[in-house]
Formats: sequence, C-alpha cells, structure tokens
Amino acid sequence: MTESYLDNVWYCAAVADEIRDFPLARTICDRPIVFFRTAAGTVAALDDRCSHRQAPLSLARMVDGRLECSYHGFTFDGTGRCVHIPHQDAVPRAADIRSYPAVEHNGLVWLWFGAPEAAAGVPVPAMPWIDDPAQRCVFMRFAVDANFQLMADNLMDVSHTDFLHRTSIGSQTGRANDDDTKVELECDVDGDRVRFMRRVKNTLLGPIATKWAGSSKRTTRTNHLVWEAPNTIHSVLEFKNEESHHTIHLDHIMTPETPSTMHYFMPWTRDFGLDNVSYPTDDDVRQEQTLVVCGDDIPMVEAQQRNIARFGVLTDVPSRQDRFVVTVHRRLAALYAENGRPVPPELQRLGKGA
Amino acid sequence: MTESYLDNVWYCAAVADEIRDFPLARTICDRPIVFFRTAAGTVAALDDRCSHRQAPLSLARMVDGRLECSYHGFTFDGTGRCVHIPHQDAVPRAADIRSYPAVEHNGLVWLWFGAPEAAAGVPVPAMPWIDDPAQRCVFMRFAVDANFQLMADNLMDVSHTDFLHRTSIGSQTGRANDDDTKVELECDVDGDRVRFMRRVKNTLLGPIATKWAGSSKRTTRTNHLVWEAPNTIHSVLEFKNEESHHTIHLDHIMTPETPSTMHYFMPWTRDFGLDNVSYPTDDDVRQEQTLVVCGDDIPMVEAQQRNIARFGVLTDVPSRQDRFVVTVHRRLAALYAENGRPVPPELQRLGKGA
Amino acid sequence: MTESYLDNVWYCAAVADEIRDFPLARTICDRPIVFFRTAAGTVAALDDRCSHRQAPLSLARMVDGRLECSYHGFTFDGTGRCVHIPHQDAVPRAADIRSYPAVEHNGLVWLWFGAPEAAAGVPVPAMPWIDDPAQRCVFMRFAVDANFQLMADNLMDVSHTDFLHRTSIGSQTGRANDDDTKVELECDVDGDRVRFMRRVKNTLLGPIATKWAGSSKRTTRTNHLVWEAPNTIHSVLEFKNEESHHTIHLDHIMTPETPSTMHYFMPWTRDFGLDNVSYPTDDDVRQEQTLVVCGDDIPMVEAQQRNIARFGVLTDVPSRQDRFVVTVHRRLAALYAENGRPVPPELQRLGKGA
Repeated sequence: MTESYLDNVWYCAAVADEIRDFPLARTICDRPIVFFRTAAGTVAALDDRCSHRQAPLSLARMVDGRLECSYHGFTFDGTGRCVHIPHQDAVPRAADIRSYPAVEHNGLVWLWFGAPEAAAGVPVPAMPWIDDPAQRCVFMRFAVDANFQLMADNLMDVSHTDFLHRTSIGSQTGRANDDDTKVELECDVDGDRVRFMRRVKNTLLGPIATKWAGSSKRTTRTNHLVWEAPNTIHSVLEFKNEESHHTIHLDHIMTPETPSTMHYFMPWTRDFGLDNVSYPTDDDVRQEQTLVVCGDDIPMVEAQQRNIARFGVLTDVPSRQDRFVVTVHRRLAALYAENGRPVPPELQRLGKGA
Repeated sequence: MTESYLDNVWYCAAVADEIRDFPLARTICDRPIVFFRTAAGTVAALDDRCSHRQAPLSLARMVDGRLECSYHGFTFDGTGRCVHIPHQDAVPRAADIRSYPAVEHNGLVWLWFGAPEAAAGVPVPAMPWIDDPAQRCVFMRFAVDANFQLMADNLMDVSHTDFLHRTSIGSQTGRANDDDTKVELECDVDGDRVRFMRRVKNTLLGPIATKWAGSSKRTTRTNHLVWEAPNTIHSVLEFKNEESHHTIHLDHIMTPETPSTMHYFMPWTRDFGLDNVSYPTDDDVRQEQTLVVCGDDIPMVEAQQRNIARFGVLTDVPSRQDRFVVTVHRRLAALYAENGRPVPPELQRLGKGA
Repeated sequence: MTESYLDNVWYCAAVADEIRDFPLARTICDRPIVFFRTAAGTVAALDDRCSHRQAPLSLARMVDGRLECSYHGFTFDGTGRCVHIPHQDAVPRAADIRSYPAVEHNGLVWLWFGAPEAAAGVPVPAMPWIDDPAQRCVFMRFAVDANFQLMADNLMDVSHTDFLHRTSIGSQTGRANDDDTKVELECDVDGDRVRFMRRVKNTLLGPIATKWAGSSKRTTRTNHLVWEAPNTIHSVLEFKNEESHHTIHLDHIMTPETPSTMHYFMPWTRDFGLDNVSYPTDDDVRQEQTLVVCGDDIPMVEAQQRNIARFGVLTDVPSRQDRFVVTVHRRLAALYAENGRPVPPELQRLGKGA
C-alpha cells in the first residue's frame, strides 16, 4: 500500500472459495499479502513475510490454523501475532506481523488498508442478487497487465461493445450512426455513487446476446450501471422484446495489484437458465465470457497500457459516449484530493472533447 | 523521436513490399508508427495511437483505405485526420493524429521526422542499381539488439571480414600480416558523404566469395564504400582476376528502433546469376547472407552492446584499419552538434589509437 | 568491482577444473571477467572486453595460450598485454587490458580486486582436508539469484535444518522445544574469524544423515563452523554415537556475482565411503546435496531476496539461535567501515531480538 492508492475504501481481494486452509499469496495495492483461513474458518490477511528473516509466509506450513514459517519455524496466528519461536520461551512483540481487516460478503473477500477502527463504519459494496435463490452466479477472475482504471473505463464506455466486440457480443445496428436518437444516455451523481443508463432501442443483438435472449427479433437493450469507489461497477443488462425479457447482473470489480496490473473479478448473475437447461449452463457462461474478456477486452486495455507507457504523457479526446467515464474520473480525482493523495496519471489524461 | 536523433534526415522504415492494405506497427527512432497504404496506394505513416483513448491504431480495421480504431470506432485517413466518431456529428480537430512524410524510392520506404516543409528539399539516398534491369536485387531486413552505430561501424571496419567471418567469407591471406602493402586504404570526405576504398591484392577468397566469383585463383578484392547520414553505407564489392569479374552492390541501411535496437535493411544487388542459373539464385543469396549476418555480425554487435552497457563508460582504441570509422564518427558528431543535438555516447568512445 | 564490495579479500571464482584452454566468462563482484589457462597452464583473469571495440574476449579464439579477439584479431596474453594488432607493427600500450591476480589452491581459483602488490600478503582460505588422501572431496557449484549474504546467513543459522529441511536432512527431535538443554551454542571471535559450535545431543537424525551415519540410533550431532571474510564458512559436521563416528567437511563459499546474484561453491569432503563402497559414491553425494540445496535452500533465499525487494526497507527480528549470524554481521559491517565502504543493506537489517 503506497501513496498511490485510496486507503479508506474496501478492495476486493479474492473470491471466497479461493481462500482455504493453506496459504494464498496475492499482491493487493502493491502490498504482498498472505491469505488463509484460521481454525475457526475466518479469513486472515497478513503481510506476506516472516518477521524473523523476511521469508514469505505464503511458503509456510499450516499447523492448527496457524502459519509455521518454513525457514526457521516462527509461528503466526490469524491476527499476525507471533505465537512461537523454536528453542526459546519468550516471544518479543516485535516479531508480530501486520494484519488487515478482511470481510467475506456475497461470496467475495474484501480488504481494508486504512485505520482498522475505521473499517466498521464503511460497508463493502452490496450485491444481494449473488445470494438471491431466484438467480444464479458464476464467479470469474482475470489477471490483467494494465492499470485498473483502464478496465473500469472500458466497462463504463459502453459504446465499445459494437466495435471491440464486433464479432462476439456487438451488433451491426449498434455500430451505425444513421439514427442517433436510438441511443439514450443518462448520467447522474448519487452521493458517493455515479449512476449511468444507456439504452439502445430496436437493435439487433450480436450472436451471443441473441442466444441469451433466445430471440432474434429487434430488442431494447438497456444497461444500468452504478459505479462506486474505488472501481466497482454494478451493471444490470436487460434485453426486452415482445418475446423475451432477460436480466444479467454483471458486477465488475477492479482491484490494483500494482500500478500497471490488476485483479479483475466478475461475478455474473443471471435470472434465466437456472434449472437443468441445456443452455446456458455455468460452463457456457464461463466459456463465453472468457472468450470475450480474454479475447477482446484484456488485449485492448493491455495494448493501451503499453501504448501510454511508450508515448509518455498523453491527453485523451472524450466522445459524446464518454459522459459516464468523465463523471467518474472527476469524482475519483476529487476523492484522491480529499484524502490528500496525488491524483494518479490515469485520471489526468482527459482533455476537452466533443 | 527524441532529442537523441537527427531529425532532418530520411530514415529507412521498411521494404516497400512490407506496407500493404493492413496496418504495420514499427517503432522508428523511439516513435511507434503505424504504416498502411491508402485507397490510392500511397504509403501513410501515423503515430500508432488513437486520439480517443490511446489504443494502438495498428490494431485498427482497414475500411476503405482508412483506419477504424478497434476500440470505439474513431476513424482516421492517411493524413492522420479523424474523419468519423461514432454516434456524433462533429469531429473536433483535437482528435487528429500526427502523420509523417513518407516516400517510396528504389523499393524502400523512407520517413522524415523534421519539419514537414523541409522534407522536399532533401533527397532520399539514391540506389539506382536496385531498379537497373541489368542487375538483380534481393531485399533483406534484420532486427538487431544493438545501437545502430555499432552495426555501421562493423560495416565500415572492413578488416573484420578475415576474423569475424573467418569460416564464411574471410580469407587466410587477408588475416596474415606478412605483406602489409597488399592492403590499400583511401578515405576522403565528399560534402555530406564519406568515401572509402579498401583493396586487397592477390588474395585467396573465402569459400562463399570463391563460389560467387566462380574462380579459386588469386583475386583482387576491392571494396568502395560511400557513407551518408544518418547511417547508410553503399558498398560496391568487386572481385577481379584473369578469369572473372563480378560486382555486388551491397547497401547497408541502419535505422534506430530504440537507442539499443535497430532495423538493419540490406538490399543486395548482383550483376551475375541473373538468368535461370543454378547458382546463385535469390534463395542462395538470402541463405548465405542470413548465415553470415545472423551467425557472425549480429551476435557480435549484440555482444558489444551488452558489454558496453555492463562495463559502463569506455574508450575504444582505434587501429590503422579504422580510418573510415574515425572519419564518419567525426562527421556524424559534427552533424549532431550543428543540429543542436547531444552527441550520442556511441560517438564519444573513440580514443587515441595507432 | 564497485564500491559495494570489499576489495582486499580473495573471492572464490571457480573450481580449478572449470578453467581450461578456452575462455570462460564469469562475472565476479559485478565485474565481467574472462578466465583461461596460458600455455604454461597458469590461470589468467582479464576484463572480459577487447580494448579495440569492446567485444567480449570470452568470444575470442585461443591461439598458443593467448586470446585472439574474434572481431578484428587484437591478441592478448595472460597478463592482459596486447601483443598483436593485425595490419600494423606498433601496438600502443593503451590497447592493454586489466588483469587480476588469481591463485589456484585446494582445487579452487581465487581472485583479487585490490591493489595487486597487496595480494601476496593475504593468504587464501586454507582447506587442507580437500587434498588429504584420507578424505575425498566432491566439488559443487550453484547459481543463486540472491545476495550472497542471504546464503551465508542460511548456513550460519543452523536451526533452519529442522524446518527448511524437514523432509530431507532435518529431524523431528530437532524441531521439538521440550528439552531446551539439548542444544548447546558457542560463538567467539578469533581475530579475523568467527567460530561457532552447535551441538544437539541425543537426537534422531533425518533420513539422509541416517544413511551417512549408517545408524538409526540416537546421535550427537556437532557442527563446528568457522567464518572468514568475505563469506567463506568452513563447517565440520560430526555424527557420533556408540555405533559410528563420521565427519564431513562442508565448505560453503559465497561469492557475489551482482548485488542480487551469487556463485555458491561447495566442496564436500568426507572421511567415509572412500573405497569402492556402494554408498555413498561421489554421485550419491552430488545428487543428495543438489536435492537439498536446489530443493530447499536456494528457493528459500531467492524468495527472501524477492520479498525484501518488494517490501522495501525491513528489520529482521533475530532469535536465540542467531548468535553466529549476529556476530558475523557485526564483524563484516566493521570491515566495510574500516575499508571506507558503505555497509550493504543486507548487513543493516538486524533489529533487536530475543
């Protein structure tokens, strides 16, 4: 955790299932963390280093829900307290390791880097649909070699669908410029959140969305998005025509690993195909989304990341479709300023646009 | 393009055949460029970034000789003008992208980084033998992980032939020191060019040159070289004895990719083996030269590059054979100074020699 | 050789057998060196660069015990003197290359970076057991991506055996804390050396040591260690019970390659299994040790190295078992200070411990 990040926000660190009774190493906000479950089953998050000689605790053995360092046997509990040093009775408190508040909610694990006593006052982003028995969630996680803002911008700039995803989830009618009124945009700030709506009426869906909708008729595609800091985007994607009505909750949660890499979590929750249907199964969802995200989005934001690095300081030229991105960038930049943090370069590139 | 390079010279960027109706990404002088042919067939060279959000235009789709960015559909013509932004009518001029003058000549494409209006006053290096119907050219291109000056020095220091190419194109008699008068050297400055001649009389040729010459008798090998900025070396290699007389135009064109990598273009033009002969065919030439360049020259200059980096600041000790190198380094250093550019470290290593 | 290293000490550079009649490139203390044997069979050590144009001399051809540069034929003898430049008579002394005092002793080659005249006054570390006909030495060498101090610390902190080598050479009784008096520690400074003794009485040996000892009875394991600068650790490992008595001289010699990589030499000399026994043969020794060193020690010190780099400045918390490490760190830090060298970060991490 460095000056580069906001610390009084929750960062999504893992899908809950990833944290088990053996150590998991993961870097969050430049901080190498070791995660594990204690004997009581609660999630523990410590700095991934033994206080003795800096061996990674992610290489430790789990003994009775505690970490026994594999190098010389210093042993730590889930609060980071050093509870044993071989061949001696006293354990100095200098041997303790920093731990971080971690909470498990809606199938995800969230981490807090700010003052521990402040954590209780800030709720983690709620996604009740994940636990709704009338819906079904598939958890996905992707490693992306780009600053986490670039993927957030990708998701907020919905107009990319018809170009970047031209052959997957995009549509020909969405690309066309002939009837501008087809696209409705709404954007407003709601306290700490930014809400955005984009509706394309009377459009032909791309091939995958056509399969989801089970209908090839012209459809109204509405996308409601809610952003909250640092970069969680709750997207509700609705396909509606006279034949069908389907809803997908697509939560995009971007967490910095380093300034130029991120963890991208994507719980994908649907209200259709819940029973023993032939399509879409959970595997269909996983395959389709992996194809789209790993085939289209990730290569593009990684190319952006490299391009920004090799060209140096640059100014973006926002389009009319960028209202959501522009609003969120301003909100985030203000948050950094309020917290006395330097505004990251990714939030400083926006120039004057259309 | 940074302070490190001369900008009022032409840089060879590609063999003309490499630039087609889809985008080609290539970095020239630290500048990432996208090359393509417009609908009219002319070469276009733009900064390889979309003005909207810095996606590489080398990932764009070509639509009617224009680049449609694959991310959100901003579209650019061959002059870098942004001609379309989806879902809006007006296109701000801030969305335009920088383009570079590019000319196609003698089968090569040259790029200009200086003021565009100054380009017309400076001719690209002429190589009329490439288009001469009585001769035949094979174009080769190599990627080399070394500063472009190290390969230029290699080519100007002809005495390396009998050592570095000992088992390929060198000769035992060339190595020997017994009869110093065999080697004639001439070097003179001719305006912006430096001319050099090295003649070895009565020598036995190495195995490949013996095959070219079709004669194993003692031969006079004369090498006329003309250097012009930034680093084009026109070499005319003549093999002459009572049985045969062959000439090869070997143009070596070195272009910086970055300070420590280069593009090495080598059009190889011969006045023999033009018709349906069994040797040398174009493939023979390509294979022989690739063996020599990739087997001998490139590993050596790359080893030099790494060695200079790991030893830090060093001074070369020029030999008597280095007159051409020394003269060109002085000329180039003067050119950098005249253009108000810092003299690169590769031109500052020459110490006092023999 | 930079400010980061002590220069008035001998650095182990190679096993003597590694240096033959062709060039060997090896970086010692950040200095790229070329090693070879002259016509007289003595070891020569020069800067690995030709004075002419910085080609590595490790690519040179050996001609009559001299190095002929493969680029343009400059030729150097074992003292670094340039003895020939092709096509000219005079050889300027500026063409000479720096050489380093090198001595061969007990099957190892040692290098000196300080003033050459001072070398004779400082003996190389003596290991007479290597040449003792009643014992038998197997030479091993490992490349480790960590600062050389981390491996030295590993070897001096003998308590790691029962944790890091839990499944190979460690023992269950050694891990237990029940009877503290079983472990005896002694540590004292003896001039330029630090002596250390660790004795574990009445212990059960781990599986490999049980095989060496040829006895599964409870054993007294005594480890006498002598450290000398920069980081040679002579270890005598003695296993003794009513059935058997075996001794191993295990010399650990750590030499910096760069600040974050090292050469780790390990002559392993035993007083058992000397004749045509079925176990342990030299190959058994090599396989067992490689398994332990490459399977346990190297991954751990490399993980430490990476962890220290990613966490930044850190303070170690020494345990009671760390007396040897702490004493040596203080001695080494004093040596750096006495020589006007900055104390390396690896010697500045020790905090207050138990």
